[in-house]
Amino acid sequence: TALEQSAAPSTRPSPLAGQSVLITAGPTHEPIDPVRFIGNRSSGRMGFAIAAAAANVGARVCLISGPSRLPTPAGVERVDVETAEQMYQAVLDRAPQAAVFIAAAAVADYRVEARAMHKIKRDNQPDQLSLVPNPDILKAVAGLTDGPLTVGFAAETDDVLDNAHDKLTAKGIDMIAANAVGEGKGFEVADNALTVLWPGGHRELGHKAKTQLAAELIDLVGERFHAAD
Amino acid sequence: TALEQSAAPSTRPSPLAGQSVLITAGPTHEPIDPVRFIGNRSSGRMGFAIAAAAANVGARVCLISGPSRLPTPAGVERVDVETAEQMYQAVLDRAPQAAVFIAAAAVADYRVEARAMHKIKRDNQPDQLSLVPNPDILKAVAGLTDGPLTVGFAAETDDVLDNAHDKLTAKGIDMIAANAVGEGKGFEVADNALTVLWPGGHRELGHKAKTQLAAELIDLVGERFHAAD
Repeated sequence: TALEQSAAPSTRPSPLAGQSVLITAGPTHEPIDPVRFIGNRSSGRMGFAIAAAAANVGARVCLISGPSRLPTPAGVERVDVETAEQMYQAVLDRAPQAAVFIAAAAVADYRVEARAMHKIKRDNQPDQLSLVPNPDILKAVAGLTDGPLTVGFAAETDDVLDNAHDKLTAKGIDMIAANAVGEGKGFEVADNALTVLWPGGHRELGHKAKTQLAAELIDLVGERFHAAD
Repeated sequence: TALEQSAAPSTRPSPLAGQSVLITAGPTHEPIDPVRFIGNRSSGRMGFAIAAAAANVGARVCLISGPSRLPTPAGVERVDVETAEQMYQAVLDRAPQAAVFIAAAAVADYRVEARAMHKIKRDNQPDQLSLVPNPDILKAVAGLTDGPLTVGFAAETDDVLDNAHDKLTAKGIDMIAANAVGEGKGFEVADNALTVLWPGGHRELGHKAKTQLAAELIDLVGERFHAAD
């Protein structure tokens, strides 16, 4: 029946109440020169919604955000960064003290090898841009001794579930939230659908507003945190 | 005296009243794959302010904008584009019928040679990004027979005046507005300073709000349009 299918709001206190939850959000910008950068289409909406949802259940939330125009959710401490390296540093400074780390940012895998200190002129442009890998923030946090419960995101254009499962295993993380992106899906839009996987289980959080998805994800993270505790 | 130095608002009708003015604004985004792109720090504020100022003096304004969250100024027709090639096409479709073309967009000089149709995986990333030149919109418009009066921008990090003068000559345009950019200057800020050059003259429009600069630039463009008419 409709009644059974509706998710009743939990009345118990969340296992995350009073816990330190570290969240990344938004894109990163990797500078090419003083005016150009490599960016991505992440608006930060999902990460900001998760931060708001975690604060709502009483967690102490630190949100590390790449360039985003979104307002800081009430009760959330915000740290602004631009590049993947800055985000790595900000996260690793705080992760050892966190209970949960949720990596919702769309971090650039690669940065430009040699950032130009002056604007590159039209006629002086290299025809190749050399890229070097950025540090893998999620993998680094998952590798910490006595580190936080780690939750990753997999924004995929193809084979969403297979790719998400591979990422869960390869990075050694505790949970992954997978979604399909592409034209009009996932990025720069207000709703989304997630499949959340963990070793030995998964749950579908169907297509709905990001704020509602975020609340359900935080409930599920609370469950897994409680189970692991 | 202060009275002599202040720029009194013009009471005569602008030479641009009733004229068709085509303006570009904002950054362009050059896709790397479905989620990544090369962008730049232009907010679009200067171009949008110029469009508003031109509409204010009675011009018929078409604003061709790259990705920008700014609202469309009252009385302005807006065409949204993403890439430099799309902007080129939108401009060249309209420029032959325009009286004035003001190129305020920060157009990417280069695009990625081969756009990936699927998201590039972390472990599958090329360590070089091959770039190819985009068409030069301003130069193409300046080369039109019986084309519009052309106004370019030179956002420079060094040697602002020399670089602007070179650009005026190299592109064969009628006017150029030069400004210094860099950390905290020019892009993503609400004020600016411009030096406007044309063959045989120049005028300093000192540091002030972009809306005020835009109004003074439109007055100056009107003067040059009248002189050339």
